[in-house]
Amino acid sequence: MADDRFHVYDTTLRDGAQQEGLNLTVADKLAIARYLDRLGVGFIEGGWPGANPKDTEFFRRARTELDLKHAQLAAFGSTRRPGMKAADDPLVAALRESEAPVVTLVAKSHDRHVELALRTTLEENLEMIRDTVSHLRAEGRRVFLDAEHFFDGYRSNPAYALEVIRTAAEAGADVVALCDTNGGMLPDELADVVHEAVTATGARIGIHCHDDSGCAVANTLAAVKAGATHVQGCANGYGERSGNANLFTVVANLQLKRGYDLVPPESLRELTHIAHAISEITNVTPNSHQPYVGVSAFAHKAGLHASAIKVDPMLYQHIDPALVGNDMRMLVSDMAGRASVELKGRALGYELTREQSTALVERVKELEAQGYTFEAADASFELLLRDTVGELRPRYFTVESWRVIVERRPDGEVVSEATVKLNAKGERIIATGEGNGPVNALDKAVRVALERLYPELAAVELIDYKVRILEGSHGTGAVTRVLITSSDTDGEWSTVGVDENIIEASWQALEQAVTYGLLRAGRTAP
Amino acid sequence: MADDRFHVYDTTLRDGAQQEGLNLTVADKLAIARYLDRLGVGFIEGGWPGANPKDTEFFRRARTELDLKHAQLAAFGSTRRPGMKAADDPLVAALRESEAPVVTLVAKSHDRHVELALRTTLEENLEMIRDTVSHLRAEGRRVFLDAEHFFDGYRSNPAYALEVIRTAAEAGADVVALCDTNGGMLPDELADVVHEAVTATGARIGIHCHDDSGCAVANTLAAVKAGATHVQGCANGYGERSGNANLFTVVANLQLKRGYDLVPPESLRELTHIAHAISEITNVTPNSHQPYVGVSAFAHKAGLHASAIKVDPMLYQHIDPALVGNDMRMLVSDMAGRASVELKGRALGYELTREQSTALVERVKELEAQGYTFEAADASFELLLRDTVGELRPRYFTVESWRVIVERRPDGEVVSEATVKLNAKGERIIATGEGNGPVNALDKAVRVALERLYPELAAVELIDYKVRILEGSHGTGAVTRVLITSSDTDGEWSTVGVDENIIEASWQALEQAVTYGLLRAGRTAP
Repeated sequence: MADDRFHVYDTTLRDGAQQEGLNLTVADKLAIARYLDRLGVGFIEGGWPGANPKDTEFFRRARTELDLKHAQLAAFGSTRRPGMKAADDPLVAALRESEAPVVTLVAKSHDRHVELALRTTLEENLEMIRDTVSHLRAEGRRVFLDAEHFFDGYRSNPAYALEVIRTAAEAGADVVALCDTNGGMLPDELADVVHEAVTATGARIGIHCHDDSGCAVANTLAAVKAGATHVQGCANGYGERSGNANLFTVVANLQLKRGYDLVPPESLRELTHIAHAISEITNVTPNSHQPYVGVSAFAHKAGLHASAIKVDPMLYQHIDPALVGNDMRMLVSDMAGRASVELKGRALGYELTREQSTALVERVKELEAQGYTFEAADASFELLLRDTVGELRPRYFTVESWRVIVERRPDGEVVSEATVKLNAKGERIIATGEGNGPVNALDKAVRVALERLYPELAAVELIDYKVRILEGSHGTGAVTRVLITSSDTDGEWSTVGVDENIIEASWQALEQAVTYGLLRAGRTAP
Repeated sequence: MADDRFHVYDTTLRDGAQQEGLNLTVADKLAIARYLDRLGVGFIEGGWPGANPKDTEFFRRARTELDLKHAQLAAFGSTRRPGMKAADDPLVAALRESEAPVVTLVAKSHDRHVELALRTTLEENLEMIRDTVSHLRAEGRRVFLDAEHFFDGYRSNPAYALEVIRTAAEAGADVVALCDTNGGMLPDELADVVHEAVTATGARIGIHCHDDSGCAVANTLAAVKAGATHVQGCANGYGERSGNANLFTVVANLQLKRGYDLVPPESLRELTHIAHAISEITNVTPNSHQPYVGVSAFAHKAGLHASAIKVDPMLYQHIDPALVGNDMRMLVSDMAGRASVELKGRALGYELTREQSTALVERVKELEAQGYTFEAADASFELLLRDTVGELRPRYFTVESWRVIVERRPDGEVVSEATVKLNAKGERIIATGEGNGPVNALDKAVRVALERLYPELAAVELIDYKVRILEGSHGTGAVTRVLITSSDTDGEWSTVGVDENIIEASWQALEQAVTYGLLRAGRTAP
C-alpha cells in the first residue's frame, strides 16, 4: 500500500479514455491497470460503473483478475440526481456494487453549470453532495470529490466554489480535487486559487488539470506547491482535446527534482518501458518527444558538443536517463563529427580506430549531402559502418535486375506487379510478386525469391514506409528519400534509400532491410 | 515592423531544425519564414551561416527571395574563438556577410562548460563576449546574446553567470536570452533566477526554454512575469529531445490570457492554418493534441453536455476557438463547417445555397475521413466545389487506362516509362513518356497526349511533389497522400490524391493539376 500522505491518482481508464480515437476493451483496461500498479501509483480510477456497461464489467472482472500490489481501485460517478435520495439513486447503487474501496464523485462547483447543466438550485447541489458523500461513507467507502469546473467557477462565484469544498469535506470526503475542466488555467492564477482553497476551507485538496494551455504539468506542480497533496493525471498525457496532465511527467518531476518519494526507485526505472507498453495497448503512436520517456527525450544531434559529452554527459542532460529507464542516444547527422560517430560505433559494439572513424564521417557527410539521413536509419548506419571498417557487411544476395509495372486498367482496377532477378547461394532466381502498390509488390517478389534459401525472412515484416521529396522546387535535382521500418519477433530497425526515382530509392531501403534482418537473425554470409 | 518593447523571437529554422528526423532544405526554410512573418513574429533566426553551408545559402537567397513584412532576420553564431580577435575570426565574418540585421551570439555562461567545452579561462570567455559583441555593434548590427546553459550555470557559479550578462550588455548586446539548454528547469526556480538576473544586472532579459520537464511553455510565462521581455520558441514546439517551447502556445497564452499585444488579431486567427501549413513543409505529422491549433484541441464528445454546450459553448472551452482559427469540432457539421465552406466559396467567386454548402461539407468530411486534405490543396477544393454545386467542372479529357513501368536493368541503369490512353475532343490518344521516376513519366505522357489539342499546357509545370503515408502501422489500411503543386506564368496551385497505391494517388493529383491548369487558362470544356 502506498503512503497516504501524498496521492498519485491515475485516471487513464476513465478521463484518458475520452481521447479521440482511443477505445479500450475491458482486457485492455485490466492490462493497463497492471502496468500502473507496477509503476506504483496509489489509485487507479477504473471508470464509471452504471453509466458505462464496459466499466461495470471492468470492476466485476477486476475483483478476480487484478492482484494489485500498490494501488487501490476507485470507481467514478456523479452525485445523486436532484430531488431524490442518494440511497435510491440507481447510479449511486452501481458505485456501491462496483465494490471499489474508493469512490470519486464528480460534483458541480460552478454556479452557472449548476443552473444550466443540472437545472437545479445552488442549495440543492450542495445537498446532493452532502447526501451522496455521507451515504457512501456510511456504506464504508472512502470518498474523494472531483469539483468540476472549479477554477472557472471560482472566477464566477468564489464563495460558492469554496462552499462546495467545505460541504464535501464536512460530509466526509477525504480529498476534494479541484478540476481545471476546460484546461485554460495558467500556473500563477491556479496556484493562488489552490492556496485560497487550502487556507479558507482546511480540506485536503487535490488537483486535476488539462493541457489546453500547454501548462497541465506545470499547473499540477504549482498546485502541489500551493498545498495540494493529491495529483491526478493520465499515462502518456492521454485525454480529451489536448489531453490530461501527463502523470508520468508529473511523477518524474516531483520525485527526481522535488524530492518526493512517490514510487519505488526501481519502478521509476521502468517508466520508459511502462509508457511504451501502455501505448502498445492503447494503439496510440508513442510521442517520441514525450519528456523523460520519449525515444528522442535524450537524443543529441549537435556534433559540436559530442567531445564534451564524452567527458561529462551530465553537463548535457537534465537527469540521468537511467533513472527512468531511458538512454542517451547520439544521432548521426551532417553536423556530426568524429567523436559522435565513435560513440555511436561503441554503442553498436565496434571500437573504431581514428582512421576508421574519420573515413566513416567522410562517407556519412557525402551521403547526407546526397539526401541520406542516418539519424532515423540505424540499420543503414550499421551496414555503412560494417562496409567502411572492413569486410563486415555480408552479401546474402546480389541483384541482377528488377522491374515494376503499375497499371490502371480500362475497368478502373489498379494493379501492381514486380519481378526481381537475384543471385543467392550460387543460384539465379527469378520471382514475381503482386501488391497493393509498387513497393509492396517488390517486397513480395523479394520474399518469394529468398524465403526458400533464408526461411528466417518469414518473421521479417515491413511495418512502416515514409517518403520525403527533397528540394522539390522547380523539379531540378529533386530526389526522393524513403525510410522503411521493419520488424521481427525481437524488435525493429530502419533503413534509408535515396534516388531521383522513388522506386529505386525504395528498393535500396528494402534491400538493406532484408540484409539487416538476416544479419540480426545471426545468418552468416554464404 | 513589430513593436520593439516585447520580442517574439522564432528559432524554428535553427534550434527547431535540431529535431530528430527534421531536415529542412533551403526552399523549406524560406517557405517557413514566410508563414512566420505572416503570423507576425518579430524575429526569425535563419540558421548559422558559416558553420552550415545550407544556412549560408539561406541568408543569400533570403536577400532576394524573402519580402518580410513584420519580421527581421537574425543570424545565429558563436562568440569568437579563444585567443584571436573577433575581426579575424572567419565564423564571425560569415555572420557579417550574412547581411542579417540582427546577430544572435551564443556564449557560455556555465563555468564548467567554459573549461570543458571551450577549454579556456573564465576571463577569456568574458573577453570573447566583449570583443565579439563590440565588433558586430561597430559593424552596425543589432546584437542579442544567448547565454547557453544559464540556469545550470547559475546553480554552479551565480556570480559568473550574472557577469556574463553584464559583460554582454555593457558591450552593446540589446538582449541577453537566458537559455535552459538542458530543459530541466521547473517554473518556480526558473522565475527566481530570472528575477535575480533582471534586478542584479539591469540588462534586458530574454528566455529560451526546452521541454524536457514538460514545462517549457509555463517556464516561458514564468520568466515573462519575472521581467523577461523577449521570448524564444519554435513553431509547433519543434526541437531537439522533447522540443523547444512551443512559440504558438506561448503567443496565444500571452495574447489571449495576459493581454499582450504581440501579433495582429487577424494573423492570430490564421494560427491553426499556419501551424498545419508548416507541418506540411516539415513533413512532421501534426500533433492532434497541440494546444489551440490541434485538430482535437476543441473536439468535444457529445452526450451529457451537448445541450448545455449549445446554450453556452463558452462554459465548455477555455477560449473562443475562432480567435486562433480553430473550430469546436462537434459543431463543425451543422454550423462552423458550413459557414467556412460558404466563406471559402465566396472567396472563389461562388455564392452557395444552404443546400449546396451542406452537401459540400458532407463530401469534404467523407473525403477527409479517407485521408484527403483540402487545406493544402485549394485547386482540388475548387474542383470539388464545382462538382458539387452543378456541372461546373469541365472534362477536358477522360482516361481509358494508364501503365507505368520502372525497371533496373542488369547494367544498373534505372528507367521509367509511362503510357496513357486518353479521350479528348472526340479523339482516342495513346502516348508514352519517359521520366526520371514513375510520376515524372506519367506527367510527360499526359503532356505528349494533350499538348497538340491544348497548347496552353506548355506553360504548366509540375513544381513540387509531396508524399505522406497515413496510418502506416502494421501495413493494414495504410494509404498514401500525394500533394502536387503546379505553376503557370501567373501563379501556382495544388492538388491532392489519396490511394493505397502511390502511383494511383499521384495520378489523381496529376489529372486534377492538368484540369485546373486548363481551367485557369480560360479554356472552356469541349
